[in-house]
This record gives sequence, C-alpha cells and structure tokens, in this order.
Amino acid sequence: MNKISKLFQIKYPIIQAGMVWASGWRLASAVSNAGGLGLIGAGSMHPAVLRNHIKKFKKASNKPFGVNIPLFYPQLDEIISIIIEEKVPIVFTSAGSPRLWTSILKENDIKVVQVVSSVNFALKSQDAGVDAIVAEGFEAGGHNGREETTTMTLIPMVKAEIDLPIIAAGGIATGGAMLAAIALGADGVQVGSRFVASNEASSHPSFKQEVVRAVEGSTVLTLKEITPVRMLKNSFFQKINSLYQKGTDVEELKLVLGKGRAKRGMFEGDLEEGELEIGQISGLINDILPAAQIVKNLIDEYNQALRLLKRI
Amino acid sequence: MNKISKLFQIKYPIIQAGMVWASGWRLASAVSNAGGLGLIGAGSMHPAVLRNHIKKFKKASNKPFGVNIPLFYPQLDEIISIIIEEKVPIVFTSAGSPRLWTSILKENDIKVVQVVSSVNFALKSQDAGVDAIVAEGFEAGGHNGREETTTMTLIPMVKAEIDLPIIAAGGIATGGAMLAAIALGADGVQVGSRFVASNEASSHPSFKQEVVRAVEGSTVLTLKEITPVRMLKNSFFQKINSLYQKGTDVEELKLVLGKGRAKRGMFEGDLEEGELEIGQISGLINDILPAAQIVKNLIDEYNQALRLLKRI
Repeated sequence: MNKISKLFQIKYPIIQAGMVWASGWRLASAVSNAGGLGLIGAGSMHPAVLRNHIKKFKKASNKPFGVNIPLFYPQLDEIISIIIEEKVPIVFTSAGSPRLWTSILKENDIKVVQVVSSVNFALKSQDAGVDAIVAEGFEAGGHNGREETTTMTLIPMVKAEIDLPIIAAGGIATGGAMLAAIALGADGVQVGSRFVASNEASSHPSFKQEVVRAVEGSTVLTLKEITPVRMLKNSFFQKINSLYQKGTDVEELKLVLGKGRAKRGMFEGDLEEGELEIGQISGLINDILPAAQIVKNLIDEYNQALRLLKRI
Repeated sequence: MNKISKLFQIKYPIIQAGMVWASGWRLASAVSNAGGLGLIGAGSMHPAVLRNHIKKFKKASNKPFGVNIPLFYPQLDEIISIIIEEKVPIVFTSAGSPRLWTSILKENDIKVVQVVSSVNFALKSQDAGVDAIVAEGFEAGGHNGREETTTMTLIPMVKAEIDLPIIAAGGIATGGAMLAAIALGADGVQVGSRFVASNEASSHPSFKQEVVRAVEGSTVLTLKEITPVRMLKNSFFQKINSLYQKGTDVEELKLVLGKGRAKRGMFEGDLEEGELEIGQISGLINDILPAAQIVKNLIDEYNQALRLLKRI
C-alpha cells in the first residue's frame, strides 16, 4: 500500500481534483466509491450549499472523501466550522497560506493537504504541518502559479526538498501519465480535466463537449496580472487578448473580467462569454465517461504501461 | 534494443541536444563514446567552424553522431553541403519547415529528425518523411514553441497522432525523468541543460556555475513577440521585463536585444548583459560532471527508478 493510499485509507492513489462548478457530491462519491479519493470543490459553493453536498455525499458513499477550499474564500470561518461539524476527514487547501488553518483542522483530526505550484510554497506548507503536498504544474487548468514550473520539473524539485508524500497534478489524464508522475517521485496523482469530462461532473454539458473538442494548443495561461488562470481560447479569451495586444492594465482587465464569468461558462454553458477553465491535457480527452470507468482506465493503463517498461 | 537505439545504432536512447555555444565536438564525442548520441550544434558555427568540429569529432570517436541545424541559419546551403561531404550520418533540424531539406538529406543516406513543439508540426514532419520526431516541451531551454505545451502533455498527444519514433525533450536531467518520458510514450530522450553543466560543454565556466546556482523559478519563457526563448532571469531579462511593464513593441524589443546576446552570455560569460538560455530543470542541477558520468547516471537512475515502480 503506498503512502497516499495509506494516508487517506483508499484503494488507489488517485485524487479527483476539487474544481469549481464541476465537483459536487455526485462526482466525489462516484470517485470515492470507485476506490479513489473524491473531493467536493467548495470554491463555487455558499456555505449552506457545501453542507448540503457533504450530507449528500455521506448518503451516497461511506468511503473517505475530502473538501477542497481555496483560501481566498470570503466566508472561510463558516466553511471551516461546517467541515469540523460534519466531520469531513480530509481537507485540501489551495490559493493561500497554510499557516492560517492547518493547526485548527489537525486539532480536529482532519488530514490537511496543501496545493502548491512552487518549491518555496511546498517548504512553507511542510513547516505549517500539512500531511501531504499537491505539486501542481503549469499545464493544469484553472488558477495556477506565477513560476510556470511544469509537472515534469516541479515533482522532482519538490521531492528533493520535501519529506512529505507528494501528489502530482497537471497534465495527468491517463495511466501512462500517472506512471510517469510516480516515476518522477510522486506518491499519487490528482486528476482534474479528465473528471470534468465525466457523467457525474456538474459542469454544463456544452462545456464538457468543448473539453472533448479541445486539441493541443487550445488552452492558455492568462490574466497573470490578476491571478494566472488556464482556460480555453474562446471568444472571451480573444477579448482579453485584444486588450493585451493594444496595451492594458489590471483595472481594465478586472473590468472586462467582471463577476461570474466562470459560472457563466462552466456551469451555465455560455461557451462564448464564459471563462472555461481546463488543463492542457484536455487535448487528449476524447470522450465523456462515468467517473468509475475513468478510475478503472487509469489503473489498467498504469499497469499496462508498467509492463511495457524495460531495463536499459 | 529500442526503436531509437536501433535507428541511430547507439547503446542508450539518450541524445545530447544540439545547443548554441555549448555543444561542439568535445561534448558530442564524449556523449557518443559513452553510448549516447552526441550532436554538434551548428546554430552558433560558421560553415568552416562546423566542418572543423565534424573533423575533430571523427578523430575523437568512431561512434554515430549528428549535427543539429536550426533552419533559419543564414548559410544553410553551405551547411548542408558540408554535412553531405563529410558523411554526417544523422541530422536534427529545428526552427523551420522539414519540407525544405528532408528529401535531399535522405537521398544522401542521412537520417533526419525534426524537433517540434506541437502536434501540428509533428504531423507536418511525418509528412515530410523524417525518421523520428523530437517533441520538446515548454520547460525546455532556448527557443521554444508558441503553444506552451509541456513535455507531460505533448508526448502522449504526439504519440496518439504519429507512428514515428518519438524523442522527448524538455525537463529531463535525471533517469527518473527519462523513465517518466518513456512511460508517457517516448522511445528516447533528448537532454540539454544537464549537458550544459558538463566538463566538455564549450559554454563559459561562469555560465555553467550559474546553471548550477539556478533554483526552481529561475527561468522564464520570454520575447514571445520575436521568437519565444527560455532563459535565466538575469539583469538582461530584467531590462526586457521593464519594457513589458511600461508597454513595448517588437521594434523596441529587437533594438534592446541587439546582436550577439547569446554568445555574450553563454560563451563569453557576461552574466549581466548576456542571454543565458537554459531549461527549467536547471533548478535540479547541482554539479558540473563529465559527460560520460551524466550518461551513466541517467541509466543507473533509470534502472533504479524502474525497480521502485509497483503494480497497483
């Protein structure tokens, strides 16, 4: 049993990423029931909605699960209280300092995992006492780091500095990539884009189809002056891009971005004007599958790829 | 024997990248003699200099070797003639269309490999009749593609579309990363940054030390309006960056870039004003080693990492 399977008491070291507008109780419970670790993404949920998802998860599965919390969340106190009350066993924190909440969560017997995109932040997270690290590369969808370090380079660099279990994220949609991540030194993988294109993701069907249509080069990391985010190059991105072409500033970008773009795109299915967050690996995703099938494929492909490797 | 070892008649499927101001006959012959494939980088050589390097290689080694030619090279006709006259067995072409020279080279019994950074260009290269593809990710040093596709995502996407042998490049400085690249579907690896920090590289000793000092986040892909290039964030980069901050255009960038920046930095050792091209993985390189030791370490680490992999 590997470090990550042991830490979370799961069958396979596969974590389904917490993703805004995609990962509610339905997706998370399907993944946990299939032997991975499902995460409910709190980033797009009001506190009452999150509590509802946690309750529904518990009805759908008795397996371990977690909640992913972006630490810039406005009602963070309330979210943390709900997580403690509902005895959520595992919390993944991202986009903020692990110093703030790690000790409180751990006092309540909650395992804490911090998502980082740099070695520096991995070291800070280790100091803060987290149980594991998600090291997420430049190719990942959604919000991302400023160093632009890719999964291939980030994993061994974090591994060289950190003693904690490491979960690789960014660019992993197949068992071959899972095997690659483990060869690089990771103990498990976090998979995002592949689970967006699942039956159980709460993403809008039109967005899921757009993920299937994506090819190599369809995504871009942009809006670096605000918070870097990887998205499909749709009309909304072209609008941003034309601002960059003519010369722009943070204020103008914020104005054009406005509010609710992510919901509009990924949940309401406005492919033109919405923000469509997804990873580079969407170019390799060609179908929408049940989450349990995705977990099974990852394991089968992993074992198959392993059989093909030979000594040199 | 794997596809790449067979194609080039070498012991290990490790190619030392052709790199401006780093890879002359000394480095190439050390790598070829150690069982990999050494490439002489023609990009920084006048035709007569290249001929001299080829002749010196032949005195230093009777093993297979190649020449890397950036296809924007001004005296391309002359370079190709020299390669044919000197019976260079293998040519790697980059930064230009493979349609131009592939058939002429192949008529002269020369194996042709095209370096690409996108699936589209891999397909065009296959159509042009090349023998193999180098698929180079965003993390690689020096000139790079506009799609910013990382090694982790590019390799399986190229693999899904191309029947030719694939050589992975970008982010590979250890045997663990070599194993990862092969797990992703590559047949061999091209290693650049790690060989810059070798005794035999013709790079300036100060630049080699700077590569050793680099940490995660030390490099950046910049000058995208001209030709995207990954370099260390030194004073010269800060100058470019301040232009970007205030708003700039191609003409101004070209003016500040001027001529001979790469030579100044990497060959003459001007760490302040020179252009210091290197990959993200420089952050993991902590010593300057003999090239033969680098080849041996890659193989030892590869086999060691393979032994650690387990079925799930």
